[in-house]
Amino acid sequence: MQDLRSIEADAESIVRAITPALDPAKYKGQAGKIAVIGGCREYTGAPYFAAISALKIGADLSHVFCTKDAAPVIKSYSPELIVHPILEESYSVRDEDKESVSNKVLAEVDKWMERFDSLVIGPGLGRDPFLLACVSKIMRHARKSNIPIVVDGDGLFLVTNNLDLVSGYALAVLTPNVNEYKRLVQKILSSEVNDLDAPQQLLSLSKQIGGVTILRKGKSDLISDGDTVKSVSIYGSPRRCGGQGDILSGSVAVFLSWASQHVQTAGGNTNLSCKNPTVLGCVAGSALMRKAASLAFMNKKRSTVTGDIIDCLGNSLEDICPAT
Amino acid sequence: MQDLRSIEADAESIVRAITPALDPAKYKGQAGKIAVIGGCREYTGAPYFAAISALKIGADLSHVFCTKDAAPVIKSYSPELIVHPILEESYSVRDEDKESVSNKVLAEVDKWMERFDSLVIGPGLGRDPFLLACVSKIMRHARKSNIPIVVDGDGLFLVTNNLDLVSGYALAVLTPNVNEYKRLVQKILSSEVNDLDAPQQLLSLSKQIGGVTILRKGKSDLISDGDTVKSVSIYGSPRRCGGQGDILSGSVAVFLSWASQHVQTAGGNTNLSCKNPTVLGCVAGSALMRKAASLAFMNKKRSTVTGDIIDCLGNSLEDICPAT
Repeated sequence: MQDLRSIEADAESIVRAITPALDPAKYKGQAGKIAVIGGCREYTGAPYFAAISALKIGADLSHVFCTKDAAPVIKSYSPELIVHPILEESYSVRDEDKESVSNKVLAEVDKWMERFDSLVIGPGLGRDPFLLACVSKIMRHARKSNIPIVVDGDGLFLVTNNLDLVSGYALAVLTPNVNEYKRLVQKILSSEVNDLDAPQQLLSLSKQIGGVTILRKGKSDLISDGDTVKSVSIYGSPRRCGGQGDILSGSVAVFLSWASQHVQTAGGNTNLSCKNPTVLGCVAGSALMRKAASLAFMNKKRSTVTGDIIDCLGNSLEDICPAT
Repeated sequence: MQDLRSIEADAESIVRAITPALDPAKYKGQAGKIAVIGGCREYTGAPYFAAISALKIGADLSHVFCTKDAAPVIKSYSPELIVHPILEESYSVRDEDKESVSNKVLAEVDKWMERFDSLVIGPGLGRDPFLLACVSKIMRHARKSNIPIVVDGDGLFLVTNNLDLVSGYALAVLTPNVNEYKRLVQKILSSEVNDLDAPQQLLSLSKQIGGVTILRKGKSDLISDGDTVKSVSIYGSPRRCGGQGDILSGSVAVFLSWASQHVQTAGGNTNLSCKNPTVLGCVAGSALMRKAASLAFMNKKRSTVTGDIIDCLGNSLEDICPAT
């Protein structure tokens, strides 16, 4: 196996480079407007974790687009989020109404789409076929509008079965865990996961779907855009409570938009060895999440839950990159 | 551009002058009864932020009038608020019922109207035409009853398209942000925003709509009633998370009622250079909000969210004007 030390990203430098300076002359929205597409009758925690994490890192506005059942619950978790109750699951739509409902959902999301700096697709989305068909259309629109997307959870289930949704889209990030990664490898490389040369296999996988960036979560996080591979091994926690992936997807969404601004502004004048904002955003999101998890674990040990980690996002970012 | 220092308000003296003394002989309601008209299926955070801010500054009672969908969510944010689920959006009203529903809504609000010291109109109101038509009627009733109103968010959208709702009403305050101000200037002055002489343009704008007080939010807040212009530049934070405007509208509503009591009681015997309670209320609300935002930012830095700022309202007021 390739020595991960040789590909370890200088993650803290990347966080410092891409995090925008705060300036009283800026107005609402300039530090990021993020949307999470997820949340159904069954799942409401995941989209909340993703969306609130975006705010706690410093985004100005964080929206959630979810089903009508999920909305009141997600809203009740926090008044800080803007929650749109617009998705529908099969059980609430008659067959003959599906097309018109689908069009309505899409029109509703389209009203907002252009305002977002990035989307997170999948936390708590569920697997209802009608809902996933609508979300596929939303993804195609996002892609047409060149909006960066982070795909996690049930969004990965959707994408693994419909690779064309992201294939060749350089602004897409997939954030698979062990099982989701296994399915991607089987589907795309028609082989099994090879942990003896994980970086090389990740590189091939990413190249094979046209340079989509993949953040493989694990003991070390591995990130590749098909061109380069980086690892993030700093910090981290041995606690594996559910929901940490949602923090990561929300964090990556914010850092993607910041990295993109940074690369546009700095042009060639950046000291960073990697110039792909999608990779930079993944490295930063991974590092911040791992640091917050380690801080939370120091305090809460086995009782650490996802909310405890979210509470540590602010201090973690401040430690790495103090706001002046 | 006019030097803002020359028009900087002595904001802390104004806060101290108009904040009423606490007295065990007083009864519930004397320190202020505020109502927020806002909250619909889509938005619930904004009216909550405005209403809870009013309480945290020292009002005795804070009501919210919102749609039936929004009410349970807003209630769930806090048991401190009185939440009336009475507004209706088009989707829930048949055309032939619109007039009777509208009359019912108005009758319901009218039962309460005279008890309020001021209204905030707009936070999370949405833009449903039927709902906005009802709110227009509520505004006309408030005006007939001489109740001070603070108009923000979607209320500004309504007013910009129906200037007669506030035109010439000296007890109205508009609190536009960058974009809302731009639309007001275009509509009322038929010109573009001129930042080179912002105070003069604000003065003209306010005069043009008959002395309505405008609080233009920005790096410095600018306030004019068409007669005088004041700036508030103290404190403030570079964080631009959504919801801060709602704190401001709730704060201004409370200080409007206090300023009005102060001017009535003190008559000519006040040391304050400005005697218009509407301007005084705006200066005080702006200063307190900016101080709370700066305190919250000191603690939370980039992770500051609106709830953190609300948590600092009490200490901020206490710093300026200790309760004895």
